[in-house]
Parts: sequence; C-alpha cells; structure tokens
Amino acid sequence: MCSVVKLSESDSYLQERICILKTEKALRAGGKIKLTAKEVEVNKLILDEKSAELSKAHKNVSEYLPSRHFFQAKGDIDRSKVFSIIKNIPKGASLHTHLLAAVSVDFIVENITYRDNIYGCFLNGNFKLTFLQNANQDTRCLWKELKEYRKEDADFDNWLRKQLSLEVENPAATYPSIDVIWQRFKKIFTTAYDMLCYRPVFEDYIYQLLTELYLDNVMYTELRGTFMPLYELNGTIYDTEEFFKIFIATVEKFKQVYPKFVGVRYIHSIYRGVTSEVLKSGLDELMGMKIMYPNFIAGFDFVGYEEEGKHIVHFHKELSEASRQLKFYFHAGETSWYGYTDLNLVDAVLLNTSRIGHGFGLPKHPVLMEMVKARDISIELCPISNQVLMLNQDPRNHPAVYLIANGFPVVICNDDPSAWGATGLSYDWYVVFMAMTSEKAGIEVLKQFAMNSIIYSAMSDHEKIEALEKWNLDWNKFLDNILNVLA
Amino acid sequence: MCSVVKLSESDSYLQERICILKTEKALRAGGKIKLTAKEVEVNKLILDEKSAELSKAHKNVSEYLPSRHFFQAKGDIDRSKVFSIIKNIPKGASLHTHLLAAVSVDFIVENITYRDNIYGCFLNGNFKLTFLQNANQDTRCLWKELKEYRKEDADFDNWLRKQLSLEVENPAATYPSIDVIWQRFKKIFTTAYDMLCYRPVFEDYIYQLLTELYLDNVMYTELRGTFMPLYELNGTIYDTEEFFKIFIATVEKFKQVYPKFVGVRYIHSIYRGVTSEVLKSGLDELMGMKIMYPNFIAGFDFVGYEEEGKHIVHFHKELSEASRQLKFYFHAGETSWYGYTDLNLVDAVLLNTSRIGHGFGLPKHPVLMEMVKARDISIELCPISNQVLMLNQDPRNHPAVYLIANGFPVVICNDDPSAWGATGLSYDWYVVFMAMTSEKAGIEVLKQFAMNSIIYSAMSDHEKIEALEKWNLDWNKFLDNILNVLA
Ligand SMILES: [Zn+2]
Ligand SMILES: [Zn+2]
Repeated sequence: MCSVVKLSESDSYLQERICILKTEKALRAGGKIKLTAKEVEVNKLILDEKSAELSKAHKNVSEYLPSRHFFQAKGDIDRSKVFSIIKNIPKGASLHTHLLAAVSVDFIVENITYRDNIYGCFLNGNFKLTFLQNANQDTRCLWKELKEYRKEDADFDNWLRKQLSLEVENPAATYPSIDVIWQRFKKIFTTAYDMLCYRPVFEDYIYQLLTELYLDNVMYTELRGTFMPLYELNGTIYDTEEFFKIFIATVEKFKQVYPKFVGVRYIHSIYRGVTSEVLKSGLDELMGMKIMYPNFIAGFDFVGYEEEGKHIVHFHKELSEASRQLKFYFHAGETSWYGYTDLNLVDAVLLNTSRIGHGFGLPKHPVLMEMVKARDISIELCPISNQVLMLNQDPRNHPAVYLIANGFPVVICNDDPSAWGATGLSYDWYVVFMAMTSEKAGIEVLKQFAMNSIIYSAMSDHEKIEALEKWNLDWNKFLDNILNVLA
Repeated sequence: MCSVVKLSESDSYLQERICILKTEKALRAGGKIKLTAKEVEVNKLILDEKSAELSKAHKNVSEYLPSRHFFQAKGDIDRSKVFSIIKNIPKGASLHTHLLAAVSVDFIVENITYRDNIYGCFLNGNFKLTFLQNANQDTRCLWKELKEYRKEDADFDNWLRKQLSLEVENPAATYPSIDVIWQRFKKIFTTAYDMLCYRPVFEDYIYQLLTELYLDNVMYTELRGTFMPLYELNGTIYDTEEFFKIFIATVEKFKQVYPKFVGVRYIHSIYRGVTSEVLKSGLDELMGMKIMYPNFIAGFDFVGYEEEGKHIVHFHKELSEASRQLKFYFHAGETSWYGYTDLNLVDAVLLNTSRIGHGFGLPKHPVLMEMVKARDISIELCPISNQVLMLNQDPRNHPAVYLIANGFPVVICNDDPSAWGATGLSYDWYVVFMAMTSEKAGIEVLKQFAMNSIIYSAMSDHEKIEALEKWNLDWNKFLDNILNVLA
C-alpha cells in the first residue's frame, strides 16, 4: 500500500497519487499480466482508439454507445474502430450461451423457414413453427404451410422475425417492466422449439451456431440446453441417447472442417419451477447420460426467470446428493432484489457451483464475495442480456465492474444473442471493454478475459493447456495483423 | 468465517447457510448494534410493514416504488406505511444540502413571490426574479412586477414552479441525457438567486428551510453555499461578514423557538470551473471568515456539474496549502465514468477530505475503498438526486448498496430537495431503506444511519455527545409512539 502523503510537498502528492493508481491497476483483471514488447506496441494502438471514442463521449454523452439501449446502439457499434479490433481478437470460449437462442434470426428466417414441410399455427396465443409431412400429421392445431402465410401477407417475414426476437423500435415503451419482457422472451422459445427439433434442421442449426461463433474468433463453447426429442418427417422420434449422438456427430463434422475449433460441451438445464420429484428424476437421467457422454456433458443448471419457480434452497437435498456426480453451473443472483431471490447465490456457493451465471447480486454479499474469490469461482458476465432483460441500464454501473476492478475471474458471455440481434461474443466484449473497465485498461484486460474463458471452462487440464497453446498462436497472429493494419 | 459445509448432511447445509447470512448481517451497516428489548419489539413491527410492501412488489414489480422515477413515485410514497414510520424517526442530521435548493417550491411561489416589490425579467434566456424599489433601479433588464405577469397569464404560477424545479410529467422524454438535465438544473439557481439575496427574504428562507427539516425530525444541518451579497430595497448591500451575522442570527432565532434544534454549519462552495487564482483568493477569503466564525464555517467544497470545469488534481497545490486550516467536504465521483472524472475520488482522499459527497464511483477503486474505511471517511448518499440527475435509475443497483453491505459509514442526504419536489430527508431515507438495504435489515440500520449523521458531522466531540443525548431522548419517544400506534 502507498505511504501516507505529505501534503506540503507537491512532488510527494503526485507520487502518492501515481502509487494509488498503479496499485489499483495491479488489482484489476489483467493487472498481473506482463506484456511482451509486441503487446506493448499493440496496446498503444488499442488505447489510442479507445481514448478517441471515449473523448468524443466525454464531450457529448449521447455519442456514448454502451449506455444507449443495444437495439439503438448496434448500428453504431458495427461502425466503431474499437469494435472492429475486438472482432479480430481470438476471444477463447463462449461459456454461457443458451442453445435455443444462439443462432442469428437471419439464418433462421432466411434459411430454415424457407425449407419444405415447414408449417405454422397459433396455439394458446403463441405462434408455433414445426416440420410435418402434411398438415394433418399433428392434430394439436390447424397447421398451415409458411408458403401460404407468405402468399397472404407480403410482410410475413418481418412479422416472423419479431416472433423470434425481442428487437423493437422503442424498447422502453414496448417493455414497461422486467416481468413483461420475460413473458415476451419466453414466447421466442415456444415459437422455435418444435422447428429446431426436426433432426436435419437441428444439425444445420448447431453447425450454424458454431460457424457464427467461429467467425467471431471463438474457439470453444459450452451450451445450456435440454434433451430435445429430435424427429424425422416420417414420425421417427429419437431418444436422449440418440439426441447426444446426433449432437456430438454434428460437432465432430464441424471440427473436421475447422480443425482450429476446439469443441463443445453441454450443460443440462431444468426449469426452476419443477417439483422436487421431477428434479430428482431429471438429475438421475442426466447422471445416466453423463456416464455415457462424460466428456460432452459438463453439468447441470436451472433455467427460467429467476423471480419465478423456486429458490435453489428448496432443492438443496436433491442437489447435494447429485453434487457427488455432477458439476453445477448455476444461474444465480440475476436479480435486483436484496435478501430475497439473490439468496440463490448463497446456495450456488454452498453447492460448490463451478461458475456463477450472471451473479448480478453478488457484490451485495461480502461473505460470498470472499468465498467466491477463495474458491476461484468464475462469474459469467452477460452485459447486453442484463441491459435488454432490464436488470441494468447503463453498463458503466453494472455490479460486475467492481468484480473486474478487484480481479475476480470474470468471463464475458452472450446468453441469448439471437434474442437481441447479436451474433458471437464481440458485442458483449465491446460493452465490457468500453464501459466496465477503466479508460486506462488496455490489451492486458482483453488478454485476461480471453484466457479466463479457457481456464474457467469445463475442459480437462490437459485440454485447457492444448486450447491455450492454440489460442496463443491465434493471439500472436492477431497482434501481427493489428501492427500491419494500424501501425 | 463459516466452516466448510459437509454436503451430505442436510442439517449442516442449513447451518452453514445461516452462518453465512448471520456473518453478512454483522458486516453491514447497523450490524454491530445490540437492540434493546423495546427496539426488538419495534423492529418486528417495522419489518412487518417492510415485508408487506416488498411482498406486493415481488408479485408485481410495477408496485415497487423506489425503482419508479421519483416524480412518478412520490404520490404513492406519501401513502406508504413504511414512509409514515420513517417520517417519525428522529433522523439526526442533514449533512449534504445545498442552501439554494432546500426550501419547498410551494413556500417560494406562494409566500416569497407574493411579496411586494418582486420583479421578473428574461435575461440571456433565463427568467430571473429580484426585489426592487422600482423597475428602473436595476438597468440590466426590463423588469416587470410579478403582479403584472399574473394579470397577463392566469397560469403564471404553474409556469413559475417549473422554472424553480425539474419536475415534469415525463422526465425520460424531457431530459434525454445527463448533460441536458444539468443545463436545466443550473437554470433554477439563476432564476432564484437574486430573489433570495434580498435580506428579509433570505432570513425567512433560512427560517423556512430549518422549519421543513425540523418538521421532518431532523435536528441539525450543514448547508453548502456561497457568500451571498444580501441587499435592502434602498440599495444597501451587505458584505460577507454581515452575511454571516445575518445568517447566524436567523439560526439563533430559530433555535430559541425550537430549543431541541441543535444548529447549522456552513460549507463554502466554489464553482469547479474557476482559475487557480480565483480559487486561491476564494480560499484566502474563506480562511479569513473561518477565523471570525470558527464554529459556523465547517469547511470547503467544489460545486457544479462534475463533468464540467476542472478535476480536483488541477488545484492540488492550492488545496494542499489550504488543508492546514480548512477541512474539505468534497463532492467527488458523482459520475459514471471510470478512469476519468471519478479520479476526483483519488484527490479527495489524498487531500484528507472529511466526507465524500456522493462517492458514486468509489467501489471502482479498491485502494481508495480501503483508505476510506481505514480513515473512517463517511459517504454522503443522495439516492433521489442520483436518480433525478440521471446517474442511476434503480436504487437497488446503486453502488452505495455495496458500501452499506460492507458497513462503510454512509450518511443519507437530500442534496437539492426542492428541485425534485421533496422536503426533508424522509424520501431519501425511504428509498435507502426499501431499496438499498437487505429485505431483512430493520431498525438497526435505521438507528445506524441516524447516529452516523451526528457522528460524521462537523460538530465538535463535545457537541456530538450532547446531540446524541438529545437524539436518544427523541429516539425513545419514537419507539414508544410506534408501540402505541402499531402494536
Ligand atoms: Zn442465461
Ligand atoms: Zn451536492
């Protein structure tokens, strides 16, 4: 710690000031990284661009993109120089992505929904998509081919996009509260689910998901999902074992085409509103599958709006029991309440969670903060998700800023990018870099975020070392490219 | 710290859980207070009311008042049972209040602006009010009596209220950015300044200010202000020494009528945009006055929008010099920037500030956090100000939540209550209690906030002890009243 300042001496005042700033720099994420000569050079270029963008914002705060709503900022982010650098960074892994909201709406509408045998129908107030041999194959609903919808309504595709995304012109007016936007958010999954369970579409969807991540310089991902009852047009329905076989085969196919891609793991998710019995049988089934696919299945998590369903403590017996065989990756503390839903954080930590999804409420809990730090539990930070889903408006004041300032192991994640018109990880990286780190934080924090995403993944130590080696090659290429283009 | 949980044993799981929650309770503000038997009883009643209000909000978040904009929540807060309890709490001191925005607009419009000799005029795009013997006495402008304005426009008083307040129907639409609202905010002072410098009005204004605080169960205040050139209609202008004499005499008059009121201190404020020379002569003048009124003048602070003018470091020589004779009460870190304006916090701490105004950016600075804790520097928290002036929308995610959770010495303040239609301290207390403390935090945190406001005031130790004794009598009366009314 810095020595006590002698106020009468101006030199010692400024020295003390520098000492405080240096000590804080060393404490924050990336503060312990020693930069190579090449990194020092690239750092200058990156900080120049960061400063240029922030200086404009200091003069006119409406120029500042991260505190604008993402729907209204995205176009300008696409034109940002800092963003173009971030897109090129090898970002490592994407560790918190929900399988069913991870592919761009463009691909779904323009590719998947233009295939043969796709039908739509309104069921209980939701528009549902599915694949059928003919309209009578599924009698739950009066199915109509999408062709027909498109004949009747020239604007159908735009309407369809809106069913598959939260994007609107004026989000503040459309979504008056977090409760409202979550109800709307859940409908996206209802619309898409049956369509994505069609086996050929599922394969192409996973392939596209990996392609979009790979194009954004992401080399590995862990996907939260459920066992999907994949089907063929002829009525065949695959069981859970076959679901994993098809899933894994698709990943392997992708890896053969892109050998630099490291792989995928699956985190099984159960709705937090289930009964203890349903949870118990779900965990039993998962443990069975985990024995068959030990490398593919990473562990377990709850999904759904955290204000709904049950708090984790309700299930502590079933989960303690399962914790001998399963790793946990709990969503916890994705809430603004204090002393209520945020107590899920206590249980996530007590149940030895491997990572915490969001952990938005964590800084309210000093004992948990110490435990998280001591146990090296990483925090999956999804700033755009938190903004769109109305937890936090201005990322400059997102609670994870304090975690990053204190060197907690934070991993940048994208949650449900298709729901807000994002692809890949770069938009979230941009927001974190421009709003949630010091204006003086440069390449060291970017490097730390990339390395964290590998280190805190569910890979084995051996795999992590291999992944870090691959990443390091890409990182050096990135440095060279930047120097060629910008210097 | 709690022992490591044995996951296989359900009892030990729940014991460990309780241990974590108890340890966190002990760490937060008020956590070390031992409640008396009477306080335990009252605590139950208060927590019942707090729970009842929060339970409604859990079910329907739009029922939750603190995260609504204050302009849209105030009417419902007035009807809240928790608020009615808070109004009755002896709240101790109000330590961060700007003299010129501290009296309700009702009093100004209905009382002050209906006096004889009041004139108005548009000057450089601002409406200005003043007192004159006749319109020609001040040739800067074409003054017109307010009587005349009122004859011409039946709605004049409503229009006038809008000049003296930020209140509007739809703040989000009216104020698109923090820069815009600060420009508008500054105009309030331009409108009112000359009017309030009229000596009889100044006396009545101060008297009313103290009355409004006293009626809200506040016993002491420290007011930030400037030397005002008080005047009489006949053209007499009083010098700074006379300004203090008139000010102090008014306070004494109030104390004679309300002997339970403890007193007032003055914190001198200079605009942060001045030159070093102007600051130096301002500090010299202040030190001269401080010798004459050592008990009345508490110290020095900068005022104005923190994004404008100069950062504190610019003045570190002049301020270091003055720090031998003056105490500082710096506004610092009232910003969302990180590594820029928030660095004022570094200088505030280096210059040994006695308290920090807002300190909104403090949790981004772990070294400063340690220094603030070690040096027992208190934080003046003004949640409604931060919401209205667009720093923070939802007080549940205000950074001071983390300070309160870690037992930092936080003092609840009101900043510029008249600008947002508030009076007294109770609205800010309500927001802090309902949004910034745990749902399980009760009377102990309220007691701590009241005591903090006395302990961290500029009073002498001797005066603090006396004030705490007086406060304690009122506190016991409050407990008895609650038990009579609610039990
Ligand atoms: Zn998620
Ligand atoms: Zn202030």
